[in-house]
Amino acid sequence: MTAEALFARWRDRIESQLDAALPSPAEAPQRLHQAMRYSVLGGGKRMRPLLVYAAGQVFGAPLDRLDSAAMAVELIHAYSLVHDDLPAMDDDALRRGKPTTHIAFDEATAILAGDALQTRAFGLLADAPLPAALRVACLQTLAHASGAAGMCGGQALDIDATGQQQSLAALTRMHALKTGALIRAAVRMGALCGEAPEPVLAQLDGFADALGLAFQVRDDILDVEASSEQLGKTAGKDQAQDKSTFPALLGMDGAKAQLRELSARMQQALAGYHEEADALRALATLAVERDH
Amino acid sequence: MTAEALFARWRDRIESQLDAALPSPAEAPQRLHQAMRYSVLGGGKRMRPLLVYAAGQVFGAPLDRLDSAAMAVELIHAYSLVHDDLPAMDDDALRRGKPTTHIAFDEATAILAGDALQTRAFGLLADAPLPAALRVACLQTLAHASGAAGMCGGQALDIDATGQQQSLAALTRMHALKTGALIRAAVRMGALCGEAPEPVLAQLDGFADALGLAFQVRDDILDVEASSEQLGKTAGKDQAQDKSTFPALLGMDGAKAQLRELSARMQQALAGYHEEADALRALATLAVERDH
Repeated sequence: MTAEALFARWRDRIESQLDAALPSPAEAPQRLHQAMRYSVLGGGKRMRPLLVYAAGQVFGAPLDRLDSAAMAVELIHAYSLVHDDLPAMDDDALRRGKPTTHIAFDEATAILAGDALQTRAFGLLADAPLPAALRVACLQTLAHASGAAGMCGGQALDIDATGQQQSLAALTRMHALKTGALIRAAVRMGALCGEAPEPVLAQLDGFADALGLAFQVRDDILDVEASSEQLGKTAGKDQAQDKSTFPALLGMDGAKAQLRELSARMQQALAGYHEEADALRALATLAVERDH
Repeated sequence: MTAEALFARWRDRIESQLDAALPSPAEAPQRLHQAMRYSVLGGGKRMRPLLVYAAGQVFGAPLDRLDSAAMAVELIHAYSLVHDDLPAMDDDALRRGKPTTHIAFDEATAILAGDALQTRAFGLLADAPLPAALRVACLQTLAHASGAAGMCGGQALDIDATGQQQSLAALTRMHALKTGALIRAAVRMGALCGEAPEPVLAQLDGFADALGLAFQVRDDILDVEASSEQLGKTAGKDQAQDKSTFPALLGMDGAKAQLRELSARMQQALAGYHEEADALRALATLAVERDH
């Protein structure tokens, strides 16, 4: 099977898993349930769930051992997008080619749906069909990655930097928290569910850190070079908002060189593995080469 | 020791535990950390942590086994207040006698601080100094109580009912989710940490359900009878917003009679216990008789 076909199969799997894990749109409170489902289902690259499955595959973990972690990390990602899009935050009207949740519903419902999606993420891990010690390890990983020391902290650094020129070091640190922490958690939870030993986990963190950064550098490049239609969200927004970006700090050529360097670092981190790491390698390529 | 002195001691304990569990106000991102601390520290009745300690005491659990659950439930409560007070939700400027978080800071920071407080709640439970199976049981309890099937769902029902007359059954159900679920989780987590057997947990759920409802009936009564200064929040708000309340549906005398009935039900649920349940009994009295 090609990597593309494998990812399509995994995307179908996570979609139906998430569909089953979210509350029914027909049950009260309907509007909340509908907003939760709207914010999660029917779109997205599912990069984080794919990373969970791909990292688990390196250690031979069956998919049904990985589903809960794959869903949990996607729900955290989805809730963060709902809240980031709010008028008080990035004030964005378009996401994945659709109106954002507060536009399709209303602000109060969007705030609440985001809150309930976060709760559902942790609840799913607590209920996962895994030994209690493994559930706890995943919960610790996800909580650390998504709170003040991770994703929320990165978002706060991003807000603090609004209207200011950031140094390359500050920009890198902000993204390491804002998007990198959750990508690292996805890889780590997949490996944990495959019962990878601690030194291997640390090695994979290196892979994941390079991947998270590559993902963001590519995002910044696409914001300049791609159309809104292609992205499914507003293009050219970084420049319009005068945000620090990698192309702005390094030049477009410099940003593309950094991407190649990160790509080499990722392949290097996986050099000790054979075909069991091919899915991870393909995701690394996807992060670097994607056009939306 | 009087119950009052015991609760003062427990309040001091939870305050210093929370202080240590929240990120430093001097570390970046400072504004986020400061908003998280502002939203949690230095105020509040701490009813939910007290319930964790009191329920644990029934089964002889030492306080250091109960601290994580006590903190986690208070952090969930605190995050829900921060988000409920937002302009898109209840739009409240005063809480515990202080400006609400989005007034003292800003909306984006308040949204983010609430998010990070929820994450911290689950992270604390995942890190609790308890056997993994017990941590998982507490995590399941708290996640179920605070998500779409609990607190968030109740808040959504409350929003859905805005401007409509609710039946007594609908009002009771809304409060059972919005405030009752978390109170029940507090009692249950305390009992779980004391390794109470399942039939006892179910019995305590009955106590907690009555307590949660009593707490809300008293809240509605106080909203009519007390001053804003006494409450530390805007009084008379229910009537101003034309919200359904127990006094509005039952009359003031009817609401007070319901409170007495709930009080009797709570004492009955604890009839099989001796002095080990005195703290729970005192909290039941406090919920019914409090004047703020």
